[in-house]
Amino acid sequence: MDIPTFDDVLAAQDRIGPHVHRTPVLTNGQLGDLAGASLFFKCENFQKVGAFKARGACNAVFSLTDEEAKRGVATHSSGNHGQAIAYAAGRRGIHSTIVMPKTAAKPKFDGVRGYGGEVVTCPPGTRSREEAVAAVLERTGANFIHPFDDAHVIAGQGTCGLELLQDAGHLDAIVAPVGGGGLISGTCLAASGFSPATKVYAAEPEQADDACRSKRAGHIVEDDAPQTIADGLKASLKPLTFHFVANHVSEVLTVSEKEIVDAMRLVWERMKIVIEPSSAVAVAAVLKNRELFAGQRVGIILTGGNVDLDRLPWAG
Amino acid sequence: MDIPTFDDVLAAQDRIGPHVHRTPVLTNGQLGDLAGASLFFKCENFQKVGAFKARGACNAVFSLTDEEAKRGVATHSSGNHGQAIAYAAGRRGIHSTIVMPKTAAKPKFDGVRGYGGEVVTCPPGTRSREEAVAAVLERTGANFIHPFDDAHVIAGQGTCGLELLQDAGHLDAIVAPVGGGGLISGTCLAASGFSPATKVYAAEPEQADDACRSKRAGHIVEDDAPQTIADGLKASLKPLTFHFVANHVSEVLTVSEKEIVDAMRLVWERMKIVIEPSSAVAVAAVLKNRELFAGQRVGIILTGGNVDLDRLPWAG
Repeated sequence: MDIPTFDDVLAAQDRIGPHVHRTPVLTNGQLGDLAGASLFFKCENFQKVGAFKARGACNAVFSLTDEEAKRGVATHSSGNHGQAIAYAAGRRGIHSTIVMPKTAAKPKFDGVRGYGGEVVTCPPGTRSREEAVAAVLERTGANFIHPFDDAHVIAGQGTCGLELLQDAGHLDAIVAPVGGGGLISGTCLAASGFSPATKVYAAEPEQADDACRSKRAGHIVEDDAPQTIADGLKASLKPLTFHFVANHVSEVLTVSEKEIVDAMRLVWERMKIVIEPSSAVAVAAVLKNRELFAGQRVGIILTGGNVDLDRLPWAG
Repeated sequence: MDIPTFDDVLAAQDRIGPHVHRTPVLTNGQLGDLAGASLFFKCENFQKVGAFKARGACNAVFSLTDEEAKRGVATHSSGNHGQAIAYAAGRRGIHSTIVMPKTAAKPKFDGVRGYGGEVVTCPPGTRSREEAVAAVLERTGANFIHPFDDAHVIAGQGTCGLELLQDAGHLDAIVAPVGGGGLISGTCLAASGFSPATKVYAAEPEQADDACRSKRAGHIVEDDAPQTIADGLKASLKPLTFHFVANHVSEVLTVSEKEIVDAMRLVWERMKIVIEPSSAVAVAAVLKNRELFAGQRVGIILTGGNVDLDRLPWAG
């Protein structure tokens, strides 16, 4: 296993700097009062492509040698990672192919194509997806960039927590959502190198709680087609990300679907910013665990802001 | 007529500094491409009470002598000004009474009370409102603070455009919505003193176009109960604000209801921030008048972010 290090995060910060935003860290007194803590929100909803995924994608794409880059890149994604790879490839001027289930929403296809990526559709399901990716790689010789089981991607995502620690001053804790685990792993790396006293908590939907169960069991437990509004968090851990969840994450905090929706709405209303349900999972976890964070300085990573405004979760 | 000056805006900036946010100025490449201009968004949706009204209210409340302040303040408002006065009075530790139509939405009452203001309800309509205000003033001896026909309020609103000019660098134009005209008047003051070459444009709903018609006619033309989704822009000009619209505003640009809703949604989707319909009026005016702003550096004042998430205008 090629486990990335804190130095890889520092290198990523230099590498991706010209291609991503250094997003702001916002505070909010009202939400802090509700939480009984000082909250520092890292706003990746303002990031390129609307999500932190731009970081890992850019680090992976710009880590390729010129020789490798010529063959282009490929990935599978029904969400933000696909757009992020298309964006990063566009910045480097190379070809990208994104395998997407044909059942994905039209804006997702438009997003990838808008950044210049080529979309290849496949029937939904892991098997079909893997076959489609294999066919693309065989045809193009492209470099495959996994959404999270990739050292460069993890190091890239780590720049988010690093910036948060650099900009917010000392933090007692950082809370970030966990799906496949790329972001939380990078956050662990950033904290371990920049601020070892800062604890890292992962936040997860109860209805997709594979990370929680995996940490408890001591080995990877996969979710079987979990259903949650936090659609960015359905993936299960892989060995590389399980390593960080098992060894560096202090605790995995789970929240209900209602708690996610309530937290999402609270952020929209009080902070006047648009965040996606996956981001709200981290906010909900902090609001739910007042005793754990009482009086502390807590960083929360708001992972993205890509939502379908026609299908808001509180609509009747 | 007590016409405020640029010095009043400078004094207001010092006076209200401890009580309001210096809100960020955001840029957005995608919206800029759509407009064919460089856009600088002054984000008053992040302001205290969720709207620029906090500025004028704080300037008026903190301009009172101690003797005056003891008697408290009063105003009428069904919207952001009421909350802003309650907030400002709370900061100064004095009593505030807000006259509101009893038909106002419950969150508006809760907002005023949440900031410590006393709510007095009256039947809807100008006559009932004026009677209710007169009764409050007679009973309490409070200082009446008009939402916009007030030199201190106008000077306070002017700090918004001043900060925009200070933070964005040279601007060819500033576009702000016009309702009663407090914000646009203050913006004219700020530009005239800080950057005389910057043109000021007012943006207005077609369905509440009294400022446009007033400017054309050369005298105040009042709207008769206009209906527009931009509910913060229903008021008509008063002599003080008409002075600025007539003499300083380059042009009043009008937009349709559909253009307002489309612009609002565009900002939510692309910028990931929550703005209210009144703010979207300015954005819509810029998008609609590409030839007017082509290649220019244009500041847009996003006036606020107080929306009812259960009643979004694009919901079916």
